[in-house]
Amino acid sequence: MNSQGQMIPLERHGVKFISLGLIAGDGVPVIWRGPMLARMVTQLLREVDWSPLDCLVVDLPPGTGDVQLTMTQEAPISGAVIVTTPQPVALEDVARGLQMFQHPSVNVPVLGVIENMSNYVCGSCGTRTEIFGHGGGKRTADRYGIPFLGEIPLDIRLQKGGDLGIPIVVSDPDSEIASKYRTIAEELLMALGFGSRL
Amino acid sequence: MNSQGQMIPLERHGVKFISLGLIAGDGVPVIWRGPMLARMVTQLLREVDWSPLDCLVVDLPPGTGDVQLTMTQEAPISGAVIVTTPQPVALEDVARGLQMFQHPSVNVPVLGVIENMSNYVCGSCGTRTEIFGHGGGKRTADRYGIPFLGEIPLDIRLQKGGDLGIPIVVSDPDSEIASKYRTIAEELLMALGFGSRL
Repeated sequence: MNSQGQMIPLERHGVKFISLGLIAGDGVPVIWRGPMLARMVTQLLREVDWSPLDCLVVDLPPGTGDVQLTMTQEAPISGAVIVTTPQPVALEDVARGLQMFQHPSVNVPVLGVIENMSNYVCGSCGTRTEIFGHGGGKRTADRYGIPFLGEIPLDIRLQKGGDLGIPIVVSDPDSEIASKYRTIAEELLMALGFGSRL
Repeated sequence: MNSQGQMIPLERHGVKFISLGLIAGDGVPVIWRGPMLARMVTQLLREVDWSPLDCLVVDLPPGTGDVQLTMTQEAPISGAVIVTTPQPVALEDVARGLQMFQHPSVNVPVLGVIENMSNYVCGSCGTRTEIFGHGGGKRTADRYGIPFLGEIPLDIRLQKGGDLGIPIVVSDPDSEIASKYRTIAEELLMALGFGSRL
């Protein structure tokens, strides 16, 4: 807590971080109906000592429910980024999410689509396989007239880095995947008007 | 609709099926707060012509929110099955889900844990890679004293079958993956007391 009674977020690699899991405690189930969930979103936005901050990234679960609605109503959102896997079944949910953000009562600009788990390159023989298909993210972006930001492959280094808390842009900045992440981040910063600061 | 005004579910391979997406229509966003979502769950349970039915499987999104709570309160649930990927970050959510089902106010038996995306075998050279790690499902099941039901690998045939609507137990019943699905289904049927009908 700071002197204003705000929670102090964790910080690593210059990124401040907080999650509902951190507050609730390890393995404790958060059995909350929508209104309580909405209140928690408001708390995470307002009762955490975020400042100074260039940019606040909120990682939301898929869907068009309470958390998503509360976010769009409680905070001035500069834009939404849609992350999807390539297969048709996932793209139906993406179409729903896009239409929610573009709905006149919500009206959040969609900055672009990222295709996750886009392909897998065998570490042994180098064969590339599109386990979940490929290109669905690009097609959806084109269909709705929004930017396609890039493709992130399935890669064991991403899983390990995620669990260790060391992003690949730190552990292996010269790798192809790190370069993909940087390109996406730069496009988003440009779209948000941070261009002159890069 | 049938003569009682109930919706008629789709049916394929002897399995009846309905989803919120089917009712809402293609790509239409379902921007509903918790109470409306809870009402829809009740509708899908009661206003669909399910009978005769051996077993109703409800595929829920991850989490411990409105939909999960409403399900446990509106229907006599025989048991919950937890499906997870192997990495530690996912297992934290599993621990939360398990504790929700075991909470005295919820009290739903957990029938077991399935580890999805357990590994990937390169179609070209046969190398097996544990992209998301391996064994987290088994460790979690052991830790909470519940059965571990099996491992489903990442496999391009599962994605294609899912999008085409043809399960691998139908398209390739002699495959190793089909046998994994059958083993899991049989263990669940036994746990639910269907043993004598197999």
